[in-house]
Amino acid sequence: NIQFNKALKEIKTYEAGKPIELVVREYGIAPEDVVKLASNENPKGVSPKVAEAIAANAHKAYLYPDDSMFELKAALSGKFDVGDENIIIGAGSDQVLEFISRAVLDENASVLMSGVTFAMYEIYARQMGAKVYKTSSHEHRFDEFMEAYHMYKPEVVYICTPNNPTGDATSREEVVKMIEAMDEDTLIVVDGAYMEYAAAKDEKYRITPKDLLRYENVIYLGTFSKAYGLGGMRVGYGIARPEVIRELYKMRPPFNITTLSLLAAIEACKDEIFVEESIALHQEQIKRYEQFAITQGLRYIDSYTNFITYLFDEQYHSSAIADALLRRGVIIRDLASYGMNAIRITVGTEEQNSIFFRHFSEVIA
Amino acid sequence: NIQFNKALKEIKTYEAGKPIELVVREYGIAPEDVVKLASNENPKGVSPKVAEAIAANAHKAYLYPDDSMFELKAALSGKFDVGDENIIIGAGSDQVLEFISRAVLDENASVLMSGVTFAMYEIYARQMGAKVYKTSSHEHRFDEFMEAYHMYKPEVVYICTPNNPTGDATSREEVVKMIEAMDEDTLIVVDGAYMEYAAAKDEKYRITPKDLLRYENVIYLGTFSKAYGLGGMRVGYGIARPEVIRELYKMRPPFNITTLSLLAAIEACKDEIFVEESIALHQEQIKRYEQFAITQGLRYIDSYTNFITYLFDEQYHSSAIADALLRRGVIIRDLASYGMNAIRITVGTEEQNSIFFRHFSEVIA
Repeated sequence: NIQFNKALKEIKTYEAGKPIELVVREYGIAPEDVVKLASNENPKGVSPKVAEAIAANAHKAYLYPDDSMFELKAALSGKFDVGDENIIIGAGSDQVLEFISRAVLDENASVLMSGVTFAMYEIYARQMGAKVYKTSSHEHRFDEFMEAYHMYKPEVVYICTPNNPTGDATSREEVVKMIEAMDEDTLIVVDGAYMEYAAAKDEKYRITPKDLLRYENVIYLGTFSKAYGLGGMRVGYGIARPEVIRELYKMRPPFNITTLSLLAAIEACKDEIFVEESIALHQEQIKRYEQFAITQGLRYIDSYTNFITYLFDEQYHSSAIADALLRRGVIIRDLASYGMNAIRITVGTEEQNSIFFRHFSEVIA
Repeated sequence: NIQFNKALKEIKTYEAGKPIELVVREYGIAPEDVVKLASNENPKGVSPKVAEAIAANAHKAYLYPDDSMFELKAALSGKFDVGDENIIIGAGSDQVLEFISRAVLDENASVLMSGVTFAMYEIYARQMGAKVYKTSSHEHRFDEFMEAYHMYKPEVVYICTPNNPTGDATSREEVVKMIEAMDEDTLIVVDGAYMEYAAAKDEKYRITPKDLLRYENVIYLGTFSKAYGLGGMRVGYGIARPEVIRELYKMRPPFNITTLSLLAAIEACKDEIFVEESIALHQEQIKRYEQFAITQGLRYIDSYTNFITYLFDEQYHSSAIADALLRRGVIIRDLASYGMNAIRITVGTEEQNSIFFRHFSEVIA
């Protein structure tokens, strides 16, 4: 028999938000009646300009993309005021996380992250056989991080701000304090997948890649999957010093971005108005979630992202609630697998949110 | 400083075929005058039905794909008469190669492949720190493979048939003989990326995934990038016993196929006529390349793929020829980096091929 690497024994795979197709298949609900608020997609959809560009170039799907990603790098380097040697593009920022794990970790290594944070940090670390340490709280608390840092001497530290799946954020000042308290041989990943929402809500949470280029051991991650409305196209990026980018590049497979994804991301960079409108819609709609929680006497985590987390006391079980909503065609994310009696709801369109409130009121009644 | 894994020191990155954009940028040639015959894309382009489906669904780019890939697996399991538990989908068959490397190899492992074959086998093996052994000839010769096999006891053996970048093929009978002569603890990868062309040319080269499911240690790889006309969309697959697929799945990142790629591949499975027409065009056009070589007194490798390899004697240097063609806007692949004084030309449309012959005649005159 084939001997697979022993690290594989430890791996649990990522539990993706349920797709609409699955709810249609399993519960016989018509696709148009399914409300998906589970994967933090942009409820405004795709920028019309981007959708138009994709449609106009569909006939180019047979051609491999420009593997140097010249134009997209130029767009990002303009946007963030960094050099193109500072940029690596991944199939989602997710793939950059994979490159980091594979370039830095092995069976003798360890990683440190917050108690509840993006699941792929742990999965990629375990694929490499590395040990995974987490702080006890889900916020990124300086004291907890530093205590664990000195105890375990991890090779990689993940700071997810704003944090997924909880929605809280760590201020720029706190992040800088953490970076400066750690050694330069630790790679610090600042994952800003939802940064556009946090920065728009409160300037003190805004962290730009350029801020972090001062440090030789920090990489900033960003994505087109959320505010830019391209979740399905899989485009993200890492920004760091060239010495780091060059090593990560060795793990990048050729053509890791599809031809149409590359083109979509380039177009998306030109339509910042769409991003602003998306954030404005979100800011208006999230107030309804806060108000709803207050009215119902539910606790929630103050959110710096495009989703909100409702916390339950013992009278409710998040899995039962998630299941009841699913049967009604409303897909949200149960956080039981993260050890929380909570659900995460993507803030949707006005109509989607109204549907959610209606079903959710009935479910908890 | 950050300590990167030591395997990274050995890695050279893949040299992709030059994109049209680069020739436009570097040589100031108008995009419409560039003829790209370097990456074995389908010269018929994308199936019009697939292009239409992509265009009609461009507005769905914000939605994550169905990560179970239910529909695409159903289409493939129908097409190949295998179960969906036998299938893993990758971002190109390339990504399945990556999963294999990461699931099976480590610094104590080794791999065996033909002397000249698909470059990613070696790159992915080196990423894991594994040793790479190659036979001395570029064909898959049974005696050479078995001698090396017994000497090195490799964990993975790659059989690329038809072979890229040379174009020759190994018959089904020879492949089966090789599989049966090797131990069951060796994972044998049968890479059929160009199989549609070989099978159409001569039945004795046809290898189907179902043929190989008899063996517990064999995985068949196929792709939508060539005959199916979706090179830019990055969709390929591996077919093997469930015990193998389950382990490879542990290395699969979520959402590894974009929403539009998934949809394109599903549509492509429904348009087999497009594939047949693509192969018919190819079979007609490749004769011109054979005739041209004969007329010019050039040697070529009898091709079972959608490209042809011209071999040069000492009077020509492949790199000089490739460079001269590039300056004229004709992109082909120089095989100097594979240790061959040869060029690989994708067989294009009638017009593209005529342009190639015209420029090439002048270059070698």
